[in-house]
Amino acid sequence: MSDSIDFFFDFGSPYSYFVSTRIDALAQRHGRKVVWRPVLLWAVLKAQGLPPPFEHPLKESYLRRDTERCARFYDLPFKLPSHFPASSHLPARAFFWLQRNTPALAVPFAKRFFEAYFVDDIDISDAAAVADVLMNVAGLNEEAARSAISDIAAKTALQSSVALAVERGVWGVPFIVIDGEPFFGADRLPLIEHKLAAGSPAAVARGVSE
Amino acid sequence: MSDSIDFFFDFGSPYSYFVSTRIDALAQRHGRKVVWRPVLLWAVLKAQGLPPPFEHPLKESYLRRDTERCARFYDLPFKLPSHFPASSHLPARAFFWLQRNTPALAVPFAKRFFEAYFVDDIDISDAAAVADVLMNVAGLNEEAARSAISDIAAKTALQSSVALAVERGVWGVPFIVIDGEPFFGADRLPLIEHKLAAGSPAAVARGVSE
Repeated sequence: MSDSIDFFFDFGSPYSYFVSTRIDALAQRHGRKVVWRPVLLWAVLKAQGLPPPFEHPLKESYLRRDTERCARFYDLPFKLPSHFPASSHLPARAFFWLQRNTPALAVPFAKRFFEAYFVDDIDISDAAAVADVLMNVAGLNEEAARSAISDIAAKTALQSSVALAVERGVWGVPFIVIDGEPFFGADRLPLIEHKLAAGSPAAVARGVSE
Repeated sequence: MSDSIDFFFDFGSPYSYFVSTRIDALAQRHGRKVVWRPVLLWAVLKAQGLPPPFEHPLKESYLRRDTERCARFYDLPFKLPSHFPASSHLPARAFFWLQRNTPALAVPFAKRFFEAYFVDDIDISDAAAVADVLMNVAGLNEEAARSAISDIAAKTALQSSVALAVERGVWGVPFIVIDGEPFFGADRLPLIEHKLAAGSPAAVARGVSE
């Protein structure tokens, strides 16, 4: 059994942002590591034969209210972006470029990028805006930042991430897989904690010794 | 502002069962009352132009896992019924019949009925099985129990409940509306607590006096 947890997310998803602020600490409390896996939600849903979420006006208006109160509940700064929904292929490619070239910076970039989109309200589909975050967070120069979001290997890595998500049965984001068990949505964080606590080495040891 | 909370639910919904065990006590802690409003989810969704939930095989298999672990998380007895999904028009009619004829018994019946379906695994669409619950919980004789589930006024009350849900923008169950604010899903219970605590007379008084 691997001790890692798969965290499938889309940089354009508010509930992914909420999970991004908590998942590492949660996993660490139980001796686990998180593998961050950006995907393009639209591509995953299309492959699974599912419609986009929040397309219906009632669900869309619910999302606007629910994300704001969830942010208050989690005590996080949040503003539904002016450009929402938007395709997140640029930050997702940048993540994989960093993972290949300066791996230690990939997750810090992801965390900072969520804030850039959901707090600072940058345009996620604007190459210059995404490049700015890469320069500020990862210290890339302008040329490197621009190539990070158009790199062929990064594009391929993102396609592989989408394919892996489809294969693992992902049908929404955020989607967390722990020892083969799927958890969908930020609201499943307490259930994840419950599972990890039950399956922690200490609890397992107690089970074995009884 | 009314001090009541609208609880829209379907007797066939596992997440409605989970909420049914907690909502009254939660509301009471904050000086609120719950209005229990059974609906037929399929009829509400059809009216809103939405597809049935959990139709996709990935979602259906997720539901089976998620309901079991949620029940463990809430520390509730639970077994996904042999007859699932199933239409819940019989218990919904019985609820409205009781509300009209012996109002004090309607909510106790609802709570007991959820257990009959999600613990004792009765067939919710079987008139004799539903009548049995009515006889055991509400003390009706067999004739009264049988008429409760075929009563014209009860059928009309159920139609009105569906129409009210559609008008209030319900698009799933359980769906709780507090002072015009909608909450969808058992996982929103902590957010409901958060809202009620912020809006409780004590909190409001504190806000006013500051």
